[in-house]
Amino acid sequence: MLKINTCYGKIDSDLLTRLSSIKLVAFDIDGSLTDGGIYYDNHDIELKAFNVKDGFGVVTLIKEGIECAVITGRNAKLTERRMQDLKVSHIIQGEADKGKALTNLCQSLSIEPEDAVCFGDDLNDMPMFRIAGVVVCPQDAHPFIKNHADYITTLPGGHGAFRELCDLILIAKGIMTADGGFVDERY
Amino acid sequence: MLKINTCYGKIDSDLLTRLSSIKLVAFDIDGSLTDGGIYYDNHDIELKAFNVKDGFGVVTLIKEGIECAVITGRNAKLTERRMQDLKVSHIIQGEADKGKALTNLCQSLSIEPEDAVCFGDDLNDMPMFRIAGVVVCPQDAHPFIKNHADYITTLPGGHGAFRELCDLILIAKGIMTADGGFVDERY
Amino acid sequence: MLKINTCYGKIDSDLLTRLSSIKLVAFDIDGSLTDGGIYYDNHDIELKAFNVKDGFGVVTLIKEGIECAVITGRNAKLTERRMQDLKVSHIIQGEADKGKALTNLCQSLSIEPEDAVCFGDDLNDMPMFRIAGVVVCPQDAHPFIKNHADYITTLPGGHGAFRELCDLILIAKGIMTADGGFVDERY
Amino acid sequence: MLKINTCYGKIDSDLLTRLSSIKLVAFDIDGSLTDGGIYYDNHDIELKAFNVKDGFGVVTLIKEGIECAVITGRNAKLTERRMQDLKVSHIIQGEADKGKALTNLCQSLSIEPEDAVCFGDDLNDMPMFRIAGVVVCPQDAHPFIKNHADYITTLPGGHGAFRELCDLILIAKGIMTADGGFVDERY
Repeated sequence: MLKINTCYGKIDSDLLTRLSSIKLVAFDIDGSLTDGGIYYDNHDIELKAFNVKDGFGVVTLIKEGIECAVITGRNAKLTERRMQDLKVSHIIQGEADKGKALTNLCQSLSIEPEDAVCFGDDLNDMPMFRIAGVVVCPQDAHPFIKNHADYITTLPGGHGAFRELCDLILIAKGIMTADGGFVDERY
Repeated sequence: MLKINTCYGKIDSDLLTRLSSIKLVAFDIDGSLTDGGIYYDNHDIELKAFNVKDGFGVVTLIKEGIECAVITGRNAKLTERRMQDLKVSHIIQGEADKGKALTNLCQSLSIEPEDAVCFGDDLNDMPMFRIAGVVVCPQDAHPFIKNHADYITTLPGGHGAFRELCDLILIAKGIMTADGGFVDERY
Repeated sequence: MLKINTCYGKIDSDLLTRLSSIKLVAFDIDGSLTDGGIYYDNHDIELKAFNVKDGFGVVTLIKEGIECAVITGRNAKLTERRMQDLKVSHIIQGEADKGKALTNLCQSLSIEPEDAVCFGDDLNDMPMFRIAGVVVCPQDAHPFIKNHADYITTLPGGHGAFRELCDLILIAKGIMTADGGFVDERY
Repeated sequence: MLKINTCYGKIDSDLLTRLSSIKLVAFDIDGSLTDGGIYYDNHDIELKAFNVKDGFGVVTLIKEGIECAVITGRNAKLTERRMQDLKVSHIIQGEADKGKALTNLCQSLSIEPEDAVCFGDDLNDMPMFRIAGVVVCPQDAHPFIKNHADYITTLPGGHGAFRELCDLILIAKGIMTADGGFVDERY
């Protein structure tokens, strides 16, 4: 299969072709945009660690007109806080059936599921994986998920894995060059 | 010895046979369901980082009717909070003698210790290790513990080690296939 | 090219020559002085993890009369707190154009940009990279940044990467010996 | 040189001989009993992550009558909290000259500095390193420190490095067997 050299190594040209027409990116939170850590204290505090590089990716996708959606099984105010800071418009939490959530979202946005990419790390992401056009997971995803992904990022969850997907989408769409810099040298 | 291919590599068929009849899973917290980190602040805050993948494992075991019990030497409200969120019914904290705790728990549940699996990472877990039918520890457990374990997970504590044990139990019981997916494709 | 043995391995003598005349060190925060983690809770808390070794480096540079400046795109009170504890006098936050910020700072300090070293890990650091005399990034920087750096530290961001740069500057200036100890044996 | 097999690999018998007569263990906090992370929030919160395995080591040393002392350059209430929980009687914080602090402590305890072991990870630990009988540092200590240590632990700071030292002392004193278990099988 034809491979393209990128800043994340050789990537199947077929994957890049599929990513080039992506209109929606739906992603899980715990283990996907974090390393899976859920911090509890003795009172009512819960913390998660997001990553600044992933945040840069989300902000750039939105700026380029690509829809971004959180679809997570857990329910945490802090996820809403972080996603609002990044201007993510679709925040679906506490969702038992992520497949139904993605289907509904696609309908409301008039986007074909084939034009959606999903990013998740565990079994409860499978229902949305079965629907989406492209399926990506972090390097430290559950082994079953890694078996079913079109692409496994080189980076683990919470340490830039989601940014890697964002960059590959931007490269596929010709917004970034293969070395990960912007074509319009905005920076 | 006969080995079975699973999503965590080749596993002794004998271990899977023993895991197939397990009725109780007793586990330590610090270093086992966390990476051992105990966060202090200048006031009265103490934090620990649990892992979402381990949580998924606990919830699934309970759903399948397998008893889950925390047996820990430390005493922290946050452990109770997290374990209650996961619906763990047996939460034994501040226990100096974990062997006695496990014996008592087995009696009250009418479960033979031979049908219990223990998961721990340090010397104070030895008393329950000596009683349980199967003994498992994370990849970064204390070296003495690793020497005495029936199985050392490929993952370190707080980063999916306990989930690995949960998955192997579910595979052994035929609830999951060897690749880590559910037989009934619930996801 | 001539290489010099240091406690961080063989370093180009040309790089050390350029570092020997540095008067200003401008650095990014997230992903550079931290591992990129941004911790959120359900209320209004945001946390970052700085590293004690980096702090030692900053304090030493300032003691030696080298100007230190934070130039970051985000805006966080905690960054100000940490930098004030380290006695950093130039704290520029929420800066969209880091190149302009560095240019302005150099003018106000009457320092040539050629005598400034920049430390950053992501695309929005590029505008200051294009101006500065020397460009350094952590081992886990974005691949595009690594391509444009004069030196990539052996250590990742938040785990001593910035300290490595500080030490190399101090070695280049003859304040430290190549093994990372002080010439004046102050410790 | 004669090597002894232990659960941490082959150890110089000479080191074990020297550790066998140790009466005082003096240790640094940041980067030594933590991974160097100093967490700040936007208000007045500072957090550090201690490790449960190190805590077990400290408690055991004290139980065996070995003096334990914190000697740290920083000043944090949380360090006092954690050390009090572990029943450490000597807590010396905000100390600019750690050598003087160790000398004074040895005098007040009537212990020869030759019978003290020091554990630290950075340059400001050097003054106590020059006095102590044995010098140990974590695997990720500053390179200058690693050059001056009698022993570099296999584990990094905050991830069991200090516990490794505690275990080697207990093995040297015949309280533990070489495999890291207690001679009296207290667990």
